[in-house]
Amino acid sequence: MPRTQPVKSCVGKRNAIYAQSGGVTAVINATACGVIETARRHRGKIGKVLAGRDGIIGVLTEDLIDTSKEAPAAIRALRHTPAGAFGSCRYKLKGLEENRAQYERLIAIFKAHDIGYFFYNGGNDSADTAWKVSQISEQLGYPVLCIGIPKTVDNDLAVTDNCPGFGSVAKYVATSMREAGYDVASMARTSTKVFVLEVMGRHAGWITAACGLAAEQPGDAPHILLFPEITFDPEKFLASADAAVKQHGYCAIAVSEGLRDKDGKFLSESGVRDAFGHAQLGGVAPRLAKLVRDRFGYRCHWAVADYLQPHRIQGGRAAGIRRGQGGGRSRDQGPQCGDAGHRAQVEPPL
Amino acid sequence: MPRTQPVKSCVGKRNAIYAQSGGVTAVINATACGVIETARRHRGKIGKVLAGRDGIIGVLTEDLIDTSKEAPAAIRALRHTPAGAFGSCRYKLKGLEENRAQYERLIAIFKAHDIGYFFYNGGNDSADTAWKVSQISEQLGYPVLCIGIPKTVDNDLAVTDNCPGFGSVAKYVATSMREAGYDVASMARTSTKVFVLEVMGRHAGWITAACGLAAEQPGDAPHILLFPEITFDPEKFLASADAAVKQHGYCAIAVSEGLRDKDGKFLSESGVRDAFGHAQLGGVAPRLAKLVRDRFGYRCHWAVADYLQPHRIQGGRAAGIRRGQGGGRSRDQGPQCGDAGHRAQVEPPL
Repeated sequence: MPRTQPVKSCVGKRNAIYAQSGGVTAVINATACGVIETARRHRGKIGKVLAGRDGIIGVLTEDLIDTSKEAPAAIRALRHTPAGAFGSCRYKLKGLEENRAQYERLIAIFKAHDIGYFFYNGGNDSADTAWKVSQISEQLGYPVLCIGIPKTVDNDLAVTDNCPGFGSVAKYVATSMREAGYDVASMARTSTKVFVLEVMGRHAGWITAACGLAAEQPGDAPHILLFPEITFDPEKFLASADAAVKQHGYCAIAVSEGLRDKDGKFLSESGVRDAFGHAQLGGVAPRLAKLVRDRFGYRCHWAVADYLQPHRIQGGRAAGIRRGQGGGRSRDQGPQCGDAGHRAQVEPPL
Repeated sequence: MPRTQPVKSCVGKRNAIYAQSGGVTAVINATACGVIETARRHRGKIGKVLAGRDGIIGVLTEDLIDTSKEAPAAIRALRHTPAGAFGSCRYKLKGLEENRAQYERLIAIFKAHDIGYFFYNGGNDSADTAWKVSQISEQLGYPVLCIGIPKTVDNDLAVTDNCPGFGSVAKYVATSMREAGYDVASMARTSTKVFVLEVMGRHAGWITAACGLAAEQPGDAPHILLFPEITFDPEKFLASADAAVKQHGYCAIAVSEGLRDKDGKFLSESGVRDAFGHAQLGGVAPRLAKLVRDRFGYRCHWAVADYLQPHRIQGGRAAGIRRGQGGGRSRDQGPQCGDAGHRAQVEPPL
């Protein structure tokens, strides 16, 4: 991450803004809890923490939630609050040259609320935004300490070794694969022989890899993992599926939504793009099931986990919650002067 | 349920066969535990409990697991054992006239193992089989007490008010809907506005109805429930979805896999049929999402829970386990003489 020069005006007590961005995870509110509780432990440096309603949109529209009005118990409860407590959004600030007015608006709001710290909780795009905001805040003579806090289920953020949000999904998909594997094994003799589970991961196969945690012994489900990083080879896939059925009696497959063919095209492309211009995916599992059924006639089942996976409070959350909370309290030091444009590293769980 | 005359030869101690049939549930092994433990409490009437490996196929092939060799702790552990501990199958015995030889084979095996009780743990088809077996056992002069034990996630068995297996699915889908609803609500302002969750239920909408448990207040997810019992009306559906988005900011939909159009055709028909001649379904959720996207341009997500739902040990199981175990111990009396062709009623949880 690039770092600017020490911020000269970072003296005295200033307020902070916290905003969530992109898809929410099972632990994003635990990160919010970490930010707010840590700020409260550093009252000499940080005044109020204001949260943007629906993320950066709430900042731009001056729709801010004053968390200082909340009791400690309410802030603590964020650790176990599902979804995005303050709302999130998919809204990407344009480049500085393209929409300088929007950045100037942001800085004007920062000034109006005496903001010295901007915590932006999201993925690579959000870290990029935090960096741009830190740049323009200096250009406009109102330097703000901008800190990107990592969050994503995909586990694919730059500079981080592990993303808050991934752990809970990993536990959910691995458990689901193990359970479904047992079930298919129980029935395979006369019924379903192939099961395909489609999980998230547009460009990164971490979640599919996590499905692999279901297997303890050779022969356990899953038997095939299909990653977005590896070009899909239909013949090789079909041969592997058939071999698993012949050897183990059934075949369980985990596949990333972002699986691509030899032309680099998503197998599941729905033709729709989100606000960041990313293709909206979904539907590779039924295509794989059809391939197998058409070739071998095996009875196939498939599931698309989609929104069932990233936010599982029930079973999966414990795996990610301490990591999520770590996001706001890097060694409990609070934000430091001279660290503008900084992405907080998440400490391993204690 | 039809009942035969009192079984004259039901005297003295006889062995029992237990077999699982059809899709396994989160609690089918709890039922097995109930059967075996209850039999052990009635040693004067019941000797060994033999379990068919892979259901009725294990009985026909004389591939029987002697549960009397298992320690009490192992039997107790069945309550928390996922999938089908002895294996299950989709295999329907034909009518008595069509395949009398198969029934005669069954009775021959019963004789060889001194079987006086046949517990068949499955759905309506299995109860029907138990009834046929009880009939032929009398015709062949070797009357066996045949008891169908209810099991199905769909909650649609004759004569039962509640099926072991449904409770855990109900809890799983309701929790999933609530979590996904919160998540969509967090993001709807700039991102996903419509979420469709497809759940099991070919002819019965109980599982979809269970999704409705997610809502506590008016406006909570789900906003639309689509049942197999009610013909799908695309225009009415689209109007409701749009109204929910306009009123609540988003729309969450639960749909049964068995949703049908005005011609009675499944929207999700894949053209494949299982061993019972039932159509294999899956894929109505993406069709609904496409309808909404094409008409209104809303960003849509969809999930197909398929095998993720019926077997959830993690979060859902507690809801069904006491009911599942109840299956084998109707008021703890054990099987009674004079009750051939009987389907065990499951007592409400204590």
